[in-house]
Order: sequence, then structure tokens, then C-alpha cells
Amino acid sequence: MWTYQAPVADMLHVLVQVLDAPAQWATLPAHADLDADTAGQVLAEAGRFASGVLAPLNASGDREGCRWSPEGVTTPTGFREAWAAYVEGGWPALAAPVADGGQGLPEALNMPLNEMIAAANHGWTMYPGLLHGACEVVRHDAVPELRARYLPPMVSGQFLATMCLTEPQAGSDLGQVRTRAEVVGGAPAANGVPVRISGSKIFISGGDHDLTDNIVHLVLCRLPDGGAGSKGLSLALVPKFLPDGRRNAVHCDGIEHKMGIHGSATCQMRFDNAEGWLIGQPHRGLAAMFRMMNSARLHVAMQGLGHLDAATQNAWRYAAERVQMRAPSRPEGAVPGPGADPIAWHPAMRRLLLGLQARTDAARVVALHGAMLLDEAEHHPEPARRAAAAAQVAILTPVAKAFFTELGHRGADEALQAWGGYGFVAEFGIEQTVRDSRIAMIYEGTNEIQAIDLVQRKLLDDGGARAEALMAGLAEEAARCRTEPALQPFAEALDGQLAAWRQAQAALLAGREGDAEYPLRVADDMLAGVGHALFAWAWARIARTALDPARAPAPGGRSAQAWLDVARYGIDWLLPQAQVHWARVGRQAAALPHLAQAGQG
Amino acid sequence: MWTYQAPVADMLHVLVQVLDAPAQWATLPAHADLDADTAGQVLAEAGRFASGVLAPLNASGDREGCRWSPEGVTTPTGFREAWAAYVEGGWPALAAPVADGGQGLPEALNMPLNEMIAAANHGWTMYPGLLHGACEVVRHDAVPELRARYLPPMVSGQFLATMCLTEPQAGSDLGQVRTRAEVVGGAPAANGVPVRISGSKIFISGGDHDLTDNIVHLVLCRLPDGGAGSKGLSLALVPKFLPDGRRNAVHCDGIEHKMGIHGSATCQMRFDNAEGWLIGQPHRGLAAMFRMMNSARLHVAMQGLGHLDAATQNAWRYAAERVQMRAPSRPEGAVPGPGADPIAWHPAMRRLLLGLQARTDAARVVALHGAMLLDEAEHHPEPARRAAAAAQVAILTPVAKAFFTELGHRGADEALQAWGGYGFVAEFGIEQTVRDSRIAMIYEGTNEIQAIDLVQRKLLDDGGARAEALMAGLAEEAARCRTEPALQPFAEALDGQLAAWRQAQAALLAGREGDAEYPLRVADDMLAGVGHALFAWAWARIARTALDPARAPAPGGRSAQAWLDVARYGIDWLLPQAQVHWARVGRQAAALPHLAQAGQG
Repeated sequence: MWTYQAPVADMLHVLVQVLDAPAQWATLPAHADLDADTAGQVLAEAGRFASGVLAPLNASGDREGCRWSPEGVTTPTGFREAWAAYVEGGWPALAAPVADGGQGLPEALNMPLNEMIAAANHGWTMYPGLLHGACEVVRHDAVPELRARYLPPMVSGQFLATMCLTEPQAGSDLGQVRTRAEVVGGAPAANGVPVRISGSKIFISGGDHDLTDNIVHLVLCRLPDGGAGSKGLSLALVPKFLPDGRRNAVHCDGIEHKMGIHGSATCQMRFDNAEGWLIGQPHRGLAAMFRMMNSARLHVAMQGLGHLDAATQNAWRYAAERVQMRAPSRPEGAVPGPGADPIAWHPAMRRLLLGLQARTDAARVVALHGAMLLDEAEHHPEPARRAAAAAQVAILTPVAKAFFTELGHRGADEALQAWGGYGFVAEFGIEQTVRDSRIAMIYEGTNEIQAIDLVQRKLLDDGGARAEALMAGLAEEAARCRTEPALQPFAEALDGQLAAWRQAQAALLAGREGDAEYPLRVADDMLAGVGHALFAWAWARIARTALDPARAPAPGGRSAQAWLDVARYGIDWLLPQAQVHWARVGRQAAALPHLAQAGQG
Repeated sequence: MWTYQAPVADMLHVLVQVLDAPAQWATLPAHADLDADTAGQVLAEAGRFASGVLAPLNASGDREGCRWSPEGVTTPTGFREAWAAYVEGGWPALAAPVADGGQGLPEALNMPLNEMIAAANHGWTMYPGLLHGACEVVRHDAVPELRARYLPPMVSGQFLATMCLTEPQAGSDLGQVRTRAEVVGGAPAANGVPVRISGSKIFISGGDHDLTDNIVHLVLCRLPDGGAGSKGLSLALVPKFLPDGRRNAVHCDGIEHKMGIHGSATCQMRFDNAEGWLIGQPHRGLAAMFRMMNSARLHVAMQGLGHLDAATQNAWRYAAERVQMRAPSRPEGAVPGPGADPIAWHPAMRRLLLGLQARTDAARVVALHGAMLLDEAEHHPEPARRAAAAAQVAILTPVAKAFFTELGHRGADEALQAWGGYGFVAEFGIEQTVRDSRIAMIYEGTNEIQAIDLVQRKLLDDGGARAEALMAGLAEEAARCRTEPALQPFAEALDGQLAAWRQAQAALLAGREGDAEYPLRVADDMLAGVGHALFAWAWARIARTALDPARAPAPGGRSAQAWLDVARYGIDWLLPQAQVHWARVGRQAAALPHLAQAGQG
């Protein structure tokens, strides 16, 4: 049966041995007193919560789902208690500043927490999913009075928060938002003024639930003098219960019946002249919302990684137990079964398992590297270092969101094959991972939107300087690998990827002049190419660590040889896929016609 | 909302213009009186049934599912009436021989029927899914008395049939089957003798239901003197109701809760000293079962194609209606919307839609070509032609099963992205196509088993002669395209694929001598490579047809230019993927280690 064992040993190996996080913490005043042991204790505790409390509610939450009535949403059995335990453990506040009541720990620990809870129970994880981003918005954009009233209970987890963007006609195109805001008493619009909000929102995760006593909605809306399009949008804070205890005119009119994450209430919300306050400057709502969105996108990337890990470890356990037919070879020292061998010994399953593990390992290295860059961007004493780190995060965010969520879903879908017919049966659990993981490719900006963001706003907008700086950092790893004969294949693989990336980037910069659609035609391939380049870097780094006796994995985890074998599989069997993406980017002349009519006669 | 419009115009264009089926029918005595008009009428009528009767029950069948009680299985509302209408229309007997009460029409019409009903309602289609194969087994292997009793009501659809293979410990490895057969009265085992059957089977589609008054189970079992492994297996015919009207001791103990095809009852069956008769020679059950399995595999391939088409046409309709943002270009002559354009005009969606349509078109050409080869193998007057066609079908069967079902599921999963958040919501229907289509990659031999079958039993067992003959036929198309300047890219693409295939085949033949595991390590890639080569052939053939004024598409379907544009997209954007597969096949030295321990620490 499906279970989730938090990969704490793997996470620690990546953080401490592969990425040398403790050395970084020593350079950041905010984290100078953090060390590997403390980090290990935090992750171990988080892992116990994810595996012990959340994972057991995953299948039951899927079966039971949320229930809606006009009075509100009831979450599945155990969800409310799990939330109380999460708050009690201080987890919502893990990475929040100490000044706001948080624990002030780095994103390098918060991101693994997010991976673990998403892997253990994606439906439940939707409720706090946007809390961290909402706290950032309130911290940065709210007037002091509002901040003082709402930030502490949000940081502690006493209140939860939503992000109310989407409307039926406004999905990827938020410029079409129609929800109206009117300043109370006709005063001039300004940050913090009381407003009345009217309109309908859809796909609001946790728009209503029974986990907390209050819910803080951040609502994208339009003031009467807000022009058309996305530049006329403002942001309002609208609580479910008002400070005087009155129930606000915020209604959940129904919940969606979905493919997955049945434990998450996806709400249709109606704001019926509801009371709230502007948050941030009028008509600058989208900018404030994007602060939340970037944080949310990285958390969604961790969901993708979490699903990939959950699928990988479950497939491995099943394949090690299930016996069918004689395998043509077996692990050194293994004893063959009485009439058949574990399917994990068969070549097709080894390819499946090694492919899943290689992607999981690489994605985790890239993700935690990104988390460390976030910490550097926030806390490094030198402004230039902060800016450089932020520029790298700007590229990594859309890549991680799109690449990891696709790997999470497609990886789970591939993994299902290990179970044969049992994979299609609900009680074996993997089909839930497939269903749950699909949404992460869509929300917080579809993966196609991520690709456009990457190509147009991150790779090309500055003539390629930001990308060049990122590549220069990756190239250092190739140079290090060059000095060690056993690491040559990794150096070559990484250098090959960087060369292909540079060539693709140059083609786009040159070609877009006379053909503005060109970068858009190949944006998805560009993102996949960059994803593979980052993976080549990660496998090189994993391999170099594996060959360094001073960086041996801690006992209880995989051996150095196992890490190396998996990384080698990555460059030998998976990385060649990159060339298809790079080649497509390079073929500007390939036509992309408009279909002349419906496909069907 | 999800709908299904049977692609009759496309099917007819492929059959009549692209593949010249009427010319073939003229050479086959069994089909000499069939012409394009009659074929068109049959397909149109089948399309009306699929779109008008089955498609409206697809979503409701998913929601409602099957209900189990100790008395038996109740299918979703409307399923029983739809079956009665199917029988009334003579559809179960479409391709059955006239001598058995069938209509004697070719597989070239039966396969499109199977595509349409699977696309319209996969859950319902599971009930007749194995009927055609079961009829073949009874026709070929049953003693005359049994054949006379059971074949006519099976051909007409008065009875339905199952294929009882899988047991909990015996999935891909049927050699582990434990169900016992004992000859009544201790007589010697022989074809047709009465037997008693005891044992449990799982994953029996339609093991019980309320569509027909009787159900004929073909049960894989072991006689007391049947040795261990797959060579000791026999086959028995075990009806739910015996000829004297008694209820046989065949019990459905429960049904599975599954990821998809909720309308199909997937039964746990218990044979409790049930009465039946041997069918075929003792200990030769697997050979008889494989007769059924090959037919079943081709029908499963059509399910993959059906899902791909259903996803494609629904995505196209939605993308043409849904407006979001301004597109960077628009179709010639199109008028831009008031504030946003149809998402079908955006580059990312054009790639999605063109990619889906190109795969659908190519898969249908390959599928119908395969169906025509089946007809030739069965009915051509010259034995050498029959044998040559059968040899090609032997290769096409595992490729079509695995390649098409993967395209069907992954294509539906890609298509979902067009809907954004709505794609994840059940009422929009595409998520059901994703869920339903997943099983086709597993049943009737997992796709990994198909790849092993292809490589070991179809491509290498005869030193490559069978494959060489198939490639010679494909090469003729490249030669034809060479004579037309506009078709050069198609000729080159196809020749490139054939060269890569020959090279891969040579590498496998040479390399397996000292490394028996080598073909198994790359079997999945070999299958994908062959699938792409067949697609290159199909796109070339579509393109050549599009440029031939004598083969214009009939009015009401797509234009010749639209067919050409899509085929061109196929070779430009999709075919490069093949090189990854061919390159992996060629790299015998790439290691595929055994994972040393569980992936997680």
C-alpha cells in the first residue's frame, strides 16, 4: 500500500554534503547560528509530522473529500486536528521573520518542509499553501494597523489566507478581472482605506473550511477609476470575520468536483458588498499579488518534487516486493526467488526506477540550491550578492515550477506502470498521486505561462545578461569536474548543455527582431532545455560529492556508490532528451500554422 | 463540455484516399462486393451510434459507476439499453464470418467501429471488448457441439464473454496460474471433455453484469497433470448459466474501485467447482488464449487512438471558443475578438493542437493499414501474400498496442492543459479521458511486455527478415515521395527513420550474442523508434495524398492543405523525438545497474 517516508537522509545529504549549506549559513547574519545538526533535527521533526500525521490522512481525505453546505465547507476527517498539530508545532512560522513571531529559519529548511507535506498529503497542504506568500504581501504592503491586526495570527497559523484572483473569464488573463472595489464614503483611494468588494471568484483553494476561525482573503479587484487591463487592478484584504466579530459578506457558493486533491476545498466565492481594506497602492494590485505568486510558484515546484519522490519510493518498495518471472540478471549477492524474481530486477523496471530516482535527486539539488539563493537574496550582507542571487532566482522560479510539476505528474504516471493492473486500483494509492499531481501543472500560472515568463521576461529582456551570469556559475562545476578523470563524462555533459543553451539564447536574441512570435513558438522547449541543463549541473555535483571521501553520506541513507550510479544514469539515459528541445529552439524556420478549421470533419 | 463527434470524414479519407482500401477489397474474394459508398454508410451509421447513444452515457457512467451486490453487478443507467441497441444494429457481428451469423465485413471497418465506441465510452466498450477474440477462440478451438451451442449467441451479442487469466500472483507471469481443472469422472483429458474449475481470478472485465442473460468465461487453468509454468495451462469454457438453465458455481465476489472506466465492472471472480468444458487441447491453453490476446491487443490499440482523437477534438473545440489575451498572430482572414483572442491562436496552444492532430492522423493511417493487412492475411487468395501480411501484422500488433495507448493517455493528459483550471474539474470531461485512457497501457500485456514481445519475438527471432520485409514496403513510399519536389522533406524523414531502424536492428543482432540483456534494456526505445518510423511513413502518405488532385478529401472534412499542414508539423516538430530512442538503442555500453538499495534513506 502507498506510504510516505520523508526522505530526510537524502535531503540532509543534498543540503550538507552536496550544497554545503552550513558554509553559506555562516555568511548570513540571520542564520549564523544554524548548523547541520540543528537543520537535521528540524527536518527529522518535519518528516515525522509529514509521515506520521499527514500521510495517514491522504487516502481517506481523497475518498471522503470536502463537503459543502450553505453554512460552509467541512474538510475530511482528521484535517482539522492535523492543522492544530501543525500550528502547535510552529510549522507555519518556520521561515517567517522572528520579528513577526516566526522562527526565522531559512528557505533551505522551509522548502523541504513544503516538499514533505505536499508529498504526504497534497489536499491538506493546499490550506497553508498560500499562507507564506500572503504573509509576505501583508508584511510588505499593508498599512501598519492592518499589518498589526492580521500578520501575527497569519504567521502563527491561527488564521489561514487565500489568494482570490481567478474569475470565469479571467484565468491566465488577469487583465479581465471584473470584481469591483469601492472606497467607503467616497474618500480618495489610498493604501489601507476601507473598501466594499463585489464580485465572483472561482478556483479559490481554501476559500472556506473548518480549520481556522478566520480566513483572510486577498482579493484582486478594480476601483471605479481603475482602467481596463491588468494595470487597473488593486488588491484588498477581506476577512471572513470582521474585527468586531461580524460575519463578512463573503460566501462560498459551492466547491468543484475535481480530478484530484479531493481533500482541498476549491471554492466558488461571492463577495457581496463585502467589507475590506485596500492593501498596497491603488491600481498596483498585480505587483503586490506577484510578490505572493513568486513565493507560491516555488512552493508549487516543491509539490512537483514531492509527488515525484512519493511515486519513486512507493514504486521502489512495490517493485522490490512483487515477484513475476525470472529476471535476466540480479543484484550482486542477491538470492533468486523460488520461481520468479522481484520485478525490480527486470530491465524495464530498473530503467523506470533509476529514471525516477535520477530526476528526484537532480530536482532536489536544484530546488535546495534555489532555496539557498533565496536566503542569500534576502539576507546576504552585500547588496551586490543579494541582487545577483535574486537574478538567479528569477530564472529558477519559472523553470522549477514548470519542469518539476511536469516531472512530478508524469513521473507518478510512469511509476504507476510498476504496479501493473494494481496501479489502476484505488487502494494501491499511486493513482491518487497521479490525479493529485496534475493540478500543479496548471495553477499559479500554467506551465505554458511559466515558459513565456522565462523566455520573455527572464532570458531575453536584459539581452541575456542574467542567464549568462547563471551559466557562468554552472560552468564552474564543469571546470571542477574536469580535474577528476572519473568525472569527465559529467563535465562533458554539463558543458554540452551550457553550449547548447548559449546557442539557443543567441538564436532567440537574433531571431526575435524580425519574428516576434519566434520565442513564443519555442518557449516550452527553451524551458525544458534549461531544466535539463540544471539537471546536468545537479548530477555533476552529486557525482563529485560521491567521489569525495570527506563528503560521505551519513549512515542510514544511500551509499556514495548508489548516488553515483543514479547520477550516471541521469546523464547517460535521460540527458539526451535535451537535444530534442535545443534543436527545436534552433529551428526558427519550422512552421507553426494556424489550424485552418476544426480537426474533425 | 466534452462531446464526441465520430471522425467519419477523417476515417473515410484515410481508408479511401490515403490507403486505397477499395482497390484492396477488389482483390479479396470475401470483400469483393464492398465499395467506398457502402463503407461510408457503415461508418456513418457506426458514428451515429457512438456519438448519439454511447457518448451521452460516458460522463454519467463514470459518475454512477457499477454497483455490486452478492446477487451480481448492476451497470450504470442506460448501459443495458445501449447494449440492446448495439445487438439490434448487428454491430457485434460486423466482422464475424457470414457462416457464423456475422456480416463478414473487413477489419478495415471493424477497427474504426472499435475506435469510435472506445472513444465515445470506454467503460461501456469493455463489455464487448473481448467478444470478438472470444469468438475466434471458440470458432477455432472448441469441439463442434460446444461451438454450435455458444458461437451463434456470442456472435449475435446475445451472450457476452470474458477472458479469465489474471490471478493475484499471476499478472504478466501467467505461468504462475493456480486455478485448477479436473476432468469429470476421471476420464482422460481431451478437447471438449466436461471439467470442474476451482480458483480465483482478478481484474476480470465484465465478469458479471446485467447486459446479457448469459456470460461465457474462457478460463486459464491447470489440469492435475499440467506441469509448472505456462506450458501446463489449459483453457476451459465456463458459462454463467448452464445449458439446462442452472446457475453455475461462478461467483463475483466484488468489483474494483479504479482510477477510471468506472462504467466497467472489474470483477474478482471465484470458480467454486464450476462446471465447464475444455476448449482446445489439454496443456495448450496459452496458445489458444494468445489467439484471443492478439485480437484483443489490436482492439486496445484502437482504444488508444480513440482517446487521442476524443482529446484532440475536444481540445480543439474548447481552444476555439475560450478567449484569453491577445495572440501574436491570427489565422488568415480571422477577425480579432473584442479584448482577447481564442487561445487556439496562441503559439503554445497551436503546438498542442497540431501535435495532437498529427499523432491522431498518423496513428489512424497506421491502424487502418494494419487492419487491411489483417484482412489480407485472412482473405487473400495467394498463400504467400497471406503469410507476408501476417508477418507484418505480427510486428504492428505490439507497436500499435503500446505506442497508441501511450499516445492516447499522454495525449489526453497534454490536451487537458488547454482547459487550464477547468481541465481539472470533472464536469468538463477531459479529466475522465485522462483517467479512462490509463488502463490501456496496462491490460492485455503491459506496454513493457509488448516491447519485449516486439524485440525478442518479432524483430530478432528470425534474424531480422520479417522487419526487413516491412521496411522494404515502407521504403516504397519514400521512393514515391522522392519524385515530387514538395514531398522531399517527407522522403528524407522517412528514409532517415528506416536507416536508423536498420542500424538499431543490426546493433541488437550483433550485440545480443555476448550480452543477452541488451535487447531488454532498450526494448521500450526500440518500440518507440519503430512507432516513429511508422508515423514518418504515415505522414509521407498523407502528404502525398494531399498533393494529388485525384485524391481530394470529400467535402465536409478537412481540406487537403489542412491535412498537409498537420503532416508537415509531424515531421518538423514531432519526429525529432525518434532520434533519442534510436540513439539509446545504439548505446549498448550505457550501464543499467541494479539499484543497490531502496531509494530513500
